Amino acid sequence: MDSFEELRKNMLKNAKEGIKSAYQNEEFALMQASNAYRELSKSYNLAYERLSEWYGIYFPEIRMGSPKALAQLAVALNGNPPDMEVISKAVSDKSKAEEVYRKASATMGRKMGGEERDAIVKFSELCLSMDAALEQLKAYIKSASTRMLPNTAYLTDETIAAELLSKAGSLDKLATMPASTIQLLGAEKALFKHIKFGSKPPKYGILFKLPAIGTAPIYMRGRIARVYATKISIGLKGDVYSKRFIAEGLKKSLDAAVERIKSAPKPEHKNVDMGRPQHGRFGGRRDFGRRRGGNPAAGRRGRRPR
Amino acid sequence: MDSFEELRKNMLKNAKEGIKSAYQNEEFALMQASNAYRELSKSYNLAYERLSEWYGIYFPEIRMGSPKALAQLAVALNGNPPDMEVISKAVSDKSKAEEVYRKASATMGRKMGGEERDAIVKFSELCLSMDAALEQLKAYIKSASTRMLPNTAYLTDETIAAELLSKAGSLDKLATMPASTIQLLGAEKALFKHIKFGSKPPKYGILFKLPAIGTAPIYMRGRIARVYATKISIGLKGDVYSKRFIAEGLKKSLDAAVERIKSAPKPEHKNVDMGRPQHGRFGGRRDFGRRRGGNPAAGRRGRRPR
Repeated sequence: MDSFEELRKNMLKNAKEGIKSAYQNEEFALMQASNAYRELSKSYNLAYERLSEWYGIYFPEIRMGSPKALAQLAVALNGNPPDMEVISKAVSDKSKAEEVYRKASATMGRKMGGEERDAIVKFSELCLSMDAALEQLKAYIKSASTRMLPNTAYLTDETIAAELLSKAGSLDKLATMPASTIQLLGAEKALFKHIKFGSKPPKYGILFKLPAIGTAPIYMRGRIARVYATKISIGLKGDVYSKRFIAEGLKKSLDAAVERIKSAPKPEHKNVDMGRPQHGRFGGRRDFGRRRGGNPAAGRRGRRPR
Repeated sequence: MDSFEELRKNMLKNAKEGIKSAYQNEEFALMQASNAYRELSKSYNLAYERLSEWYGIYFPEIRMGSPKALAQLAVALNGNPPDMEVISKAVSDKSKAEEVYRKASATMGRKMGGEERDAIVKFSELCLSMDAALEQLKAYIKSASTRMLPNTAYLTDETIAAELLSKAGSLDKLATMPASTIQLLGAEKALFKHIKFGSKPPKYGILFKLPAIGTAPIYMRGRIARVYATKISIGLKGDVYSKRFIAEGLKKSLDAAVERIKSAPKPEHKNVDMGRPQHGRFGGRRDFGRRRGGNPAAGRRGRRPR
């Protein structure tokens, strides 16, 4: 009995050690930070839209270049009558500061009450805190991606590399993914819509955020995404397994491939709709749904012979 | 020409005055604050979920009662080894503080790196700022609703009164709404789904947040919402037009009506599906869609005689 107790204790200890060592992988922290960054960006955009709408009833003439600038001005003015000194502290550009002062002095907006001022100033401060937190998250994501995924971060950028990792779930999973899966990471919804309902297949997921893809003419985007995915998939082997920095060579051949795509003549027809995949799970069962969009049940009824 | 110029100047001045006086209505500020509160609550919940998941890789054993408590602990510990003094500053309950100390000393979690720590501590601080901003917004909403909508705030609560206002768009619009519209404010999506596709009609919108409705048995909720909406609609006339506080009497008759609903025997059958409304815009055109749910086009095909 005594040895049984001891065995149990040892096993528990081993399990704990196992968990502990699993937690030591920094990839978990990077994935969490990347998700936090993505979610917080959305919240920040929402908060900024609200702030500009709300602040607009006090100062409808204002136009600031960035969310941060507007929040800084709102905090600086703090509901007081405009003061050139205060404004020029918040707005570094002198002519802009003068313009703000002039407009604020002749504003048609509402005068702030006391509690109102507390609420909107606190809200503006929160916008600034969000901005600062985003900066901090980005700094960590940058340094951690460059450490863990040097090749991928070099080929794409640090944020995109971290997002690919967090979609994949772990470094190992990401490194063993085929290039085609990497190309479509983040486009799961569109992919399954394609498989189930025969809508157009997606051409890229997270990779769309790459300027090289997002700003290319539409008909090139899928091809460029494919080239990127291939090189990323090779780079990942260097990141995770051989721990070698091979991105410079990859980047060169990547650029050459993108150049080839860009100099190729534009196809005369748009991409032909490939419909539902012919092989795989749904192969041959084309009749159970319409080719594109809509409700498969509706399609079936519609084509019933009369 | 001179008089024309003068006329133009006067008209511009008048228009400006008009805009200025329109902005002076405090209802705009209340609506903005109410919307900000609603959006920020969502962002806060999202941030807290992320924080508890993220902090879980450093300290998986932790269970704190509230988002704020977890963020406070994360900021206090700041990635350092646990220290009873630091913990008891963040956790006021003594036995809870001891439990946290015990668990933190034997944690299976990951050790924080430097940049990681900066990122997660900044993120925890942001959660605390969000909490503080929510408090400030709520304080303003409370005092402004009680000032502008005393009857409605008394019958429901200050946040719900402000939400009704911001859905309606202005005090005047809200005060002239029929009780049935007030009952369904915030349920527009379900209402139009009902009108277009004949799904079940909604019974309440924003009013669902009232504990009296949200916690009642399902078959009573619609009736209670109707009674509330009626009394709110009467109270609003006092809020906006006669500026009298009549909510005490209303509340008494409201409570009596709710009591009557609660003591009535439970109906034997569930509410009968009333289908698409028989009158009004779509009256008599029952044939263009199925009665309940689904795609109307599909329904039509389905019932074609074979």
